[in-house]
Amino acid sequence: MFDTLTIVGVGLISGSFSLALKDKGLVKHVIGVSRTQASIDKALELGLIDESLPIEDAVKKSDLIYIAIPVDVTVPIMRKVMDLVNEKQIVADAGSTKQVLCEALANHPMRRRFVATHPMWGTEYSGPEAAVKESFAGRTCVICEREKSDPDAVQKIEEVYRQLGMNLVNMDPVSHDVHAAYVSHISHITSFALANTVLEKEKEGDAIFELAGGGFESTVRLAKSSPAMWAPIFMQNKENVLDVLNEHISQLRKFKSSLEKENYEYLVELMENANKIRRIIK
Amino acid sequence: MFDTLTIVGVGLISGSFSLALKDKGLVKHVIGVSRTQASIDKALELGLIDESLPIEDAVKKSDLIYIAIPVDVTVPIMRKVMDLVNEKQIVADAGSTKQVLCEALANHPMRRRFVATHPMWGTEYSGPEAAVKESFAGRTCVICEREKSDPDAVQKIEEVYRQLGMNLVNMDPVSHDVHAAYVSHISHITSFALANTVLEKEKEGDAIFELAGGGFESTVRLAKSSPAMWAPIFMQNKENVLDVLNEHISQLRKFKSSLEKENYEYLVELMENANKIRRIIK
Repeated sequence: MFDTLTIVGVGLISGSFSLALKDKGLVKHVIGVSRTQASIDKALELGLIDESLPIEDAVKKSDLIYIAIPVDVTVPIMRKVMDLVNEKQIVADAGSTKQVLCEALANHPMRRRFVATHPMWGTEYSGPEAAVKESFAGRTCVICEREKSDPDAVQKIEEVYRQLGMNLVNMDPVSHDVHAAYVSHISHITSFALANTVLEKEKEGDAIFELAGGGFESTVRLAKSSPAMWAPIFMQNKENVLDVLNEHISQLRKFKSSLEKENYEYLVELMENANKIRRIIK
Repeated sequence: MFDTLTIVGVGLISGSFSLALKDKGLVKHVIGVSRTQASIDKALELGLIDESLPIEDAVKKSDLIYIAIPVDVTVPIMRKVMDLVNEKQIVADAGSTKQVLCEALANHPMRRRFVATHPMWGTEYSGPEAAVKESFAGRTCVICEREKSDPDAVQKIEEVYRQLGMNLVNMDPVSHDVHAAYVSHISHITSFALANTVLEKEKEGDAIFELAGGGFESTVRLAKSSPAMWAPIFMQNKENVLDVLNEHISQLRKFKSSLEKENYEYLVELMENANKIRRIIK
């Protein structure tokens, strides 16, 4: 489908994207762009990329430029890339926030060559070592402002994600950011906060961790995630994240109140309500 | 090792215990005791038990009586069982709280035939259908008040858990309940509360759940857990759970404050601290 793909950022998402496209025979040659030489070396070694070039040279040689870097640096890099592309090239991003980026590019003369996407897949690991070929499949990919991109660009990007096994959903950037706060960002914050809660206890000198079982691991897993990636997401989606965080604290206070008052019925009611999540996750 | 085992409660833990013992050749015959006929039928069908009897008859025929029922009904059932056993029989429980039970049995004339245990394994599912043979292995089992049990009883129970692949830890019941609040009970509360947070949003009519990815599933998984099992645990361990819950809410407030003040440095500091959990979970 593509002769040459440039990935800007050579980490978990872009590396997995590259591996998956190579695996499906959707790309012949992959160029990596990164400020970090160690990441480039690792990406070359792991076969995520075939060569590394400065961003200007890489963009010039590519049919598709795929940008997956922390959201606080996405806008300036994206502007730079968009200034370089012609009417046959396609640019797509994989960022976890969409409103700021879409607004920043709204009036760019090449806006129609850009497709705003958020493949809702990831792990708690980062960097090129974290990339895996078996990724994305079975998950949802959000496409924002589909109507603002050229049909040929949208069709190709959608076809790529479909071939990776993703379900496509169209959404405006504002709705995307609200929903991402609920189904992704808050999970990371609760996990970070839970880790801090338990680490606070560890200071008292107890070796409580040999007790930690599967339930603990599963709720605290995301606390291993990269601050360089997640802090900018929380900041950029601040209003939505704060709304959800306030709701979450108020839900925790209901549990607190039911325990303080020894209101067994209320406690059970809260838990039975939570059980309804069974409808949503298998 | 045992001719006949009675499991009181035929659910996730007791059923998995029975399957594992049968698998390792540690027991010849298993009797199930339950108030729920449907559970007994299912347990017989799945081969978790070989027969079902009233509790008095079951105890009389058994070398080992293993009690795994919600902690609010454990004390009365345990008293009944302890009143029935002789000096050769062994009684063990698998409860998630230990202080109330150990205090309740402290002066029982047969106390030395009881071994207080908490195998730190489980899933979010319950009932006999949830039982799996491959369970317990690689996890920690806490033994409380080891010195108050007869050496032959402790040795046999420890040997069973060792053969199931568990790491044994001795702990007094008060410490156990504190630590369980940190590494198990709080994870369940945050998960229940997170489910309620997101379900609250769903009321607004949005179909946000197709977006839910692996991170969300992992943090919210425990919200599927049984209220009949977990509400009594939270109530019985109320003081410790409230301590941890207060700490957790205060940790969440730190994230809230860092976002409200747009204090990026503080936000990153909170997340970098949480990353230290990498030392503890792989």
